[in-house]
Amino acid sequence: MKVSIIGSTGYTGFELVKILIKHPHIEISAVTSDSYAGKNFSEIYPQLTNIFDKTIEPNNFEQIASKSDIIFLCLPHAASMDAVKYFFVKGKICIDLSADFRYQDISLYEKTYKINHKYPELLDFTAYGIPELFEKNIKSAKIIGNPGCYPTSIIIPTYPLLKEGLISPEIIADSKSGVSGAGKKPTEKTHFCEVNEDFKPYSILSHRHESEISSILKLADKNSKVIFTPHLLPINRGIESTIYTKSDKSLEQLYDCLKEYYKNKKFVRIYENSIPSIKNVQYTNFIDIALFKRRETLIIVSCIDNLIKGASGQAVQNMNLLLNLKESTALI
Amino acid sequence: MKVSIIGSTGYTGFELVKILIKHPHIEISAVTSDSYAGKNFSEIYPQLTNIFDKTIEPNNFEQIASKSDIIFLCLPHAASMDAVKYFFVKGKICIDLSADFRYQDISLYEKTYKINHKYPELLDFTAYGIPELFEKNIKSAKIIGNPGCYPTSIIIPTYPLLKEGLISPEIIADSKSGVSGAGKKPTEKTHFCEVNEDFKPYSILSHRHESEISSILKLADKNSKVIFTPHLLPINRGIESTIYTKSDKSLEQLYDCLKEYYKNKKFVRIYENSIPSIKNVQYTNFIDIALFKRRETLIIVSCIDNLIKGASGQAVQNMNLLLNLKESTALI
Amino acid sequence: MKVSIIGSTGYTGFELVKILIKHPHIEISAVTSDSYAGKNFSEIYPQLTNIFDKTIEPNNFEQIASKSDIIFLCLPHAASMDAVKYFFVKGKICIDLSADFRYQDISLYEKTYKINHKYPELLDFTAYGIPELFEKNIKSAKIIGNPGCYPTSIIIPTYPLLKEGLISPEIIADSKSGVSGAGKKPTEKTHFCEVNEDFKPYSILSHRHESEISSILKLADKNSKVIFTPHLLPINRGIESTIYTKSDKSLEQLYDCLKEYYKNKKFVRIYENSIPSIKNVQYTNFIDIALFKRRETLIIVSCIDNLIKGASGQAVQNMNLLLNLKESTALI
Amino acid sequence: MKVSIIGSTGYTGFELVKILIKHPHIEISAVTSDSYAGKNFSEIYPQLTNIFDKTIEPNNFEQIASKSDIIFLCLPHAASMDAVKYFFVKGKICIDLSADFRYQDISLYEKTYKINHKYPELLDFTAYGIPELFEKNIKSAKIIGNPGCYPTSIIIPTYPLLKEGLISPEIIADSKSGVSGAGKKPTEKTHFCEVNEDFKPYSILSHRHESEISSILKLADKNSKVIFTPHLLPINRGIESTIYTKSDKSLEQLYDCLKEYYKNKKFVRIYENSIPSIKNVQYTNFIDIALFKRRETLIIVSCIDNLIKGASGQAVQNMNLLLNLKESTALI
Repeated sequence: MKVSIIGSTGYTGFELVKILIKHPHIEISAVTSDSYAGKNFSEIYPQLTNIFDKTIEPNNFEQIASKSDIIFLCLPHAASMDAVKYFFVKGKICIDLSADFRYQDISLYEKTYKINHKYPELLDFTAYGIPELFEKNIKSAKIIGNPGCYPTSIIIPTYPLLKEGLISPEIIADSKSGVSGAGKKPTEKTHFCEVNEDFKPYSILSHRHESEISSILKLADKNSKVIFTPHLLPINRGIESTIYTKSDKSLEQLYDCLKEYYKNKKFVRIYENSIPSIKNVQYTNFIDIALFKRRETLIIVSCIDNLIKGASGQAVQNMNLLLNLKESTALI
Repeated sequence: MKVSIIGSTGYTGFELVKILIKHPHIEISAVTSDSYAGKNFSEIYPQLTNIFDKTIEPNNFEQIASKSDIIFLCLPHAASMDAVKYFFVKGKICIDLSADFRYQDISLYEKTYKINHKYPELLDFTAYGIPELFEKNIKSAKIIGNPGCYPTSIIIPTYPLLKEGLISPEIIADSKSGVSGAGKKPTEKTHFCEVNEDFKPYSILSHRHESEISSILKLADKNSKVIFTPHLLPINRGIESTIYTKSDKSLEQLYDCLKEYYKNKKFVRIYENSIPSIKNVQYTNFIDIALFKRRETLIIVSCIDNLIKGASGQAVQNMNLLLNLKESTALI
Repeated sequence: MKVSIIGSTGYTGFELVKILIKHPHIEISAVTSDSYAGKNFSEIYPQLTNIFDKTIEPNNFEQIASKSDIIFLCLPHAASMDAVKYFFVKGKICIDLSADFRYQDISLYEKTYKINHKYPELLDFTAYGIPELFEKNIKSAKIIGNPGCYPTSIIIPTYPLLKEGLISPEIIADSKSGVSGAGKKPTEKTHFCEVNEDFKPYSILSHRHESEISSILKLADKNSKVIFTPHLLPINRGIESTIYTKSDKSLEQLYDCLKEYYKNKKFVRIYENSIPSIKNVQYTNFIDIALFKRRETLIIVSCIDNLIKGASGQAVQNMNLLLNLKESTALI
Repeated sequence: MKVSIIGSTGYTGFELVKILIKHPHIEISAVTSDSYAGKNFSEIYPQLTNIFDKTIEPNNFEQIASKSDIIFLCLPHAASMDAVKYFFVKGKICIDLSADFRYQDISLYEKTYKINHKYPELLDFTAYGIPELFEKNIKSAKIIGNPGCYPTSIIIPTYPLLKEGLISPEIIADSKSGVSGAGKKPTEKTHFCEVNEDFKPYSILSHRHESEISSILKLADKNSKVIFTPHLLPINRGIESTIYTKSDKSLEQLYDCLKEYYKNKKFVRIYENSIPSIKNVQYTNFIDIALFKRRETLIIVSCIDNLIKGASGQAVQNMNLLLNLKESTALI
């Protein structure tokens, strides 16, 4: 199978390359970037010197289509939808890491991202890419809307509990992310001296991932309401979400529900006697989950690596499903 | 005024020394530690070489009493109460940084710390040391129960709102602290490689500060209930608390309440157009607060330096009040 | 005394403000910045909210001259020399934190910075601002060329030993600096994810500070030759220099020389039984020094805070000398 | 092939497990530790939950010998030699990560480590395990003295240049290591608050790795003399060495020598147009090297991951050689 990575020089592109070069059934035909075209990929990421020295190509869709079966798109939202349209028409499978194909409700997407969606007709061919929850959709999709990092950490532990009516639909998610979530472009917000030894919330009650989370959780319980507060951690990678809700069920019942839902899901680890931490999932595709309860208060803790399970790892996991490969190929 | 610092070689003792050597009305008569007696203080903290090279004395209470008017106690809980008793009887003022004198409800203290309190009679002479809220008590007290770091960050922003009945008494406090809060003693939990690049909650639904917070907030609203989740940040110092509750009042009314309560309080800074961050309070005695609201959800963000406003700075602020000095002496 | 700070919104300007607001004989008349004019200083640095909320002015030299006795210049090199010329002509004292007045040898400056020096005539009124070495020059100067951070850490420990002919003139300085040395402007080099958990040398055999170091050390020993290698440390602030040279003198003789030179110099701390570390000088104006010797090999270790002794603290120390104030005013 | 890891719960044991579980020709028969016997390995390292949950065994040599062909020893020096002796007699291959079998000169070992070596007769069966330099010895050895982390970073770039007489035998190595090099045991030296935001040299002119480096470099040039200064970096992993020496050869000649020596060596990467950095080798078995020259001064920069190329990765690389497997198996 031949794959290409569009917009490959950001952090998610780098992670995709590192995963895919270990994939036994995949060949990377092209990595692209308009800014770095002509350079070797290992000039941008010297860690890959002598391992992946491929020349970066410009974003010439025609050329890429001619030599790819599957396209990973690491473009900004809005830019991504045109590319997906092009490759879809050519019969290619698209795994889109932007937000452009994460919403079934176009108006919610448009309100959240403040742009028009030009191709609502493509949504019929699209699946939201959490493999543990939407396997059937993913296997028959042509376009995968690869989930946001924060949403992945919040939806996986709460979806089954909401679906089974075991918890209140009102959820508070207090999430903390490493700096790589903000991308590779230098800004004041990512300057070392501004981030290091600091910690703070940001985009309070206004982060775009909140509507993504809500829209998916409403599929489980139409009354779902989410309060989502992201914070910036002075670390490179990882997300921890501490999630508060109410439940009149026992801790055991809640654990049973999650264990049943995820019993064959390799990448979901449920802890009954310890607390997840970012360190335990860093550089892996795992999501670690634990539950804590006192009277009706339920606290859910989940951790992922934002660049792997929260982005590129999950993207490859989606690809594996689509190709009927073992879900964990190249991911363990 | 002559002060001594008992158990001076931990992080709070070090901060006390750094503040008090700049205090124009104070002379440090003694710094003590059983483990380091005989060494110079600047051997333990070379940063103070040529600035504070005083020899550390053993914990000989008689000698210390003979040369001190005020005693700062940086001992572990339980050990502290005997020392306070001794110095109280000698007519000294005690500012106790342990938990031993933070509770008016002895049984709650005993349940939380799992030991008996030997001197309940001293509580009549004790004040809980948040100067912005309990100034009158502090000024007439002989013993100050200096607050915990997490409680300081949570009580200051919520107490007035609860007192005025403007918010729901059910509060969720999701707090994050730098590693100095865990003390100077090396443990697996504070090993660099375990903490660095990691983040996680700990003591979920079981941290001892929760009962301290509840017991004080019940003074404001007897129905107060607090869910408190601490997390360990990979930074040296600072606490951020993101606090969730409900309110049917407008954001303006809530701000007005806080601004009125704290209008002459130098160390409370209330932000209406920006988000507090740990960096802005590090190495200061400030608490920075902001409010955010959507429909009935209220989010309060507060930040302090855990070793200053959360411990030694607040201790000196209490001393300044007791001595009728300007509250900010040596603190700005 | 009225002082102004030109180009005040970078890290050295921020440190100057923090020091000068504690200075009993100084009033800050103006802080300037073309980019941030009209904003409050505490909007740029919220840490100073309620402490220093002064409005930032544009770089209008005429207005600044009219209300200042002393001018601190935190401009880039080249831009600085025009400003210094202007204020010098108006009879003001200039303390220039750029490189423009650090060289007595104009051709070396021009070769190093690849621009022409427009005002060589001003060098007669200029002193190189290491107070511990050039006190007499500084006291009679009108312009202070405030030293570079790396040069400060290397010159102070080696100058006396070279001057007395106790060490070989061939010196290797392996120096490591925190990220604030690279300034406040976001670049790829200062992006959190690029710096954090990394370490590397940079500008090997080509850093501009090498010629500054050499030119000053040649005043002590005309045969001085310096190999200088800077490295980027993943910390906010601090410089450590490990300096290698040869000597046929005993360790005691070498220590005696330094102790004699710096016996009344408050900010030079010489350690005979321990190793300096960045932590011990952070947020202080101290330089900590120790010597180590085996056969003819001499290793000198020195540490400073790059923003204080390496920039703004030393600038104020120079001002104190010029004004015949106690050298440590506002600095301890 | 069946391997066991003795003393498996430290950082090098953890890395060995992570590498060996991906090795196609290896089965891990046992992981041992006296302190943690009876626990699951994934309780100590939860990152491996569901991946490597093997029960840790006590250090019962007889049992281990009965089920292993190859033994990796991650014991402290002195403890290691008895274990090696036991397994050697049983006909097992030993890869020893301690210092006990790194020295051919017993008296130098004994002077450096201040203990007697009980089995000098074993040295005839021992090879120093730098695969790029001592392949032939390694292939015929029964015991591998796996090199120290600092020595690996210094010997690989300098050995060929010394051997060919291209550089002066007097070498200064200024090295910096992440904290994992100090091991997993909590000490004051590894307390987060002591290390974070700090940097300093340690063991100046007295580090035990200096004699290891010298003894190996003397094989290349019997006049070799090394000055070695280690420093502690506030990062988890990685070593950077900046090495100073003199040479009258051209930079091109020096590069040619290294390129010739290492032309088929996968894990040695030589850079002619960029500067190595720790980030580029983290989590890899590579050593990155570059040279810089001005007149007769030569500066060599090298970077490794201290736990991989500096310990467990190199140990597996040695095993691969011994087993006539592809050198990079499980390492790329």
